[in-house]
Amino acid sequence: MNYPNGKNAAAIHQQAAMRQSHGNRGMTLENDINETNKFYLETDRAIIHKKPTPIQIVNVNYPKRSAAVITEAYFKQASTTDYNGIYKAKYVDFEAKETKNTTSFPFSNIHEHQMKHMAKVLQHGGICFIIIRFSKLGETYYVPAEVLLASWKSHLKGGRKSLPYKDIQQKGFLIPFHYQARVNYLNIIDHLYF
Amino acid sequence: MNYPNGKNAAAIHQQAAMRQSHGNRGMTLENDINETNKFYLETDRAIIHKKPTPIQIVNVNYPKRSAAVITEAYFKQASTTDYNGIYKAKYVDFEAKETKNTTSFPFSNIHEHQMKHMAKVLQHGGICFIIIRFSKLGETYYVPAEVLLASWKSHLKGGRKSLPYKDIQQKGFLIPFHYQARVNYLNIIDHLYF
Repeated sequence: MNYPNGKNAAAIHQQAAMRQSHGNRGMTLENDINETNKFYLETDRAIIHKKPTPIQIVNVNYPKRSAAVITEAYFKQASTTDYNGIYKAKYVDFEAKETKNTTSFPFSNIHEHQMKHMAKVLQHGGICFIIIRFSKLGETYYVPAEVLLASWKSHLKGGRKSLPYKDIQQKGFLIPFHYQARVNYLNIIDHLYF
Repeated sequence: MNYPNGKNAAAIHQQAAMRQSHGNRGMTLENDINETNKFYLETDRAIIHKKPTPIQIVNVNYPKRSAAVITEAYFKQASTTDYNGIYKAKYVDFEAKETKNTTSFPFSNIHEHQMKHMAKVLQHGGICFIIIRFSKLGETYYVPAEVLLASWKSHLKGGRKSLPYKDIQQKGFLIPFHYQARVNYLNIIDHLYF
């Protein structure tokens, strides 16, 4: 009832719960990527930032002599991927997801408008990909958006609901761990584009 | 006291108040740019999005059978500019500001880390600029980041605290109004880069 935008309440509730649990869990994929981006920024290799979580603000209080307090707000679905920026003068755009699955990456992890956004980025000449971490396997892959989108399109025509782990191994790239760049994805971009 | 991150409370309070009043005022610069970006997206000319407002979430409630409600949160300062994306395979990054001044654009409208971000974008080969609307004059300008940064650097060395309107007229570009692309900034980019 209090719910704006007609979004799927259960899905966003779950999203929010995940965000919170992630926040307390220590080194998640998101933290690793943020650390990596910070390192890239400090060493002038690339400018990549995570976009803030989209929030629908409903109520704000303005107490005297202190900061504005948002007292009612809701999580909104993102209309793009979470990360973008510039590397060697090229536009870079990606999403990052962790899964506990060990045999495939379910497409249900990515919203349709995010898929469409990635397709558009490719069409405009950007570098676009998804970082997938198989947390139980301790492996993190760079999967080109081309690979993800081809498989997703065949899913829309009745194909399987997920990208098999073996396809990710074959068509994706295992991202090396680096002490300061924990998810050293620029190495893969260098390999593929430069 | 309730204030996280040690940010300047007054500044952020003001920011929040501005956001709220903007939300009620109808066709602001932000709305015009959002409409423009939507038009560019729908016509496949460019993919430019406004980043969500950064929020520091402190408390979230998870009522049964309904959406998660954020019950305590604060506005955070942005660490980058508000808009970025891709145009003709190039990385595009800009900030947008309205001023009621008629003789200059005060540097106090832009945070230092936003200035530094813009300098970095130029250094990495991106297209970077600021859109300045003189609301009382009804004029909106495209000012290359190079112009803004040169003037800001001389301010840091004791120069004036604002960019004069006459400099903006001379070194910037008046952005044409277009019915669907109300702030038709891609025209200026075409003129400058393509």
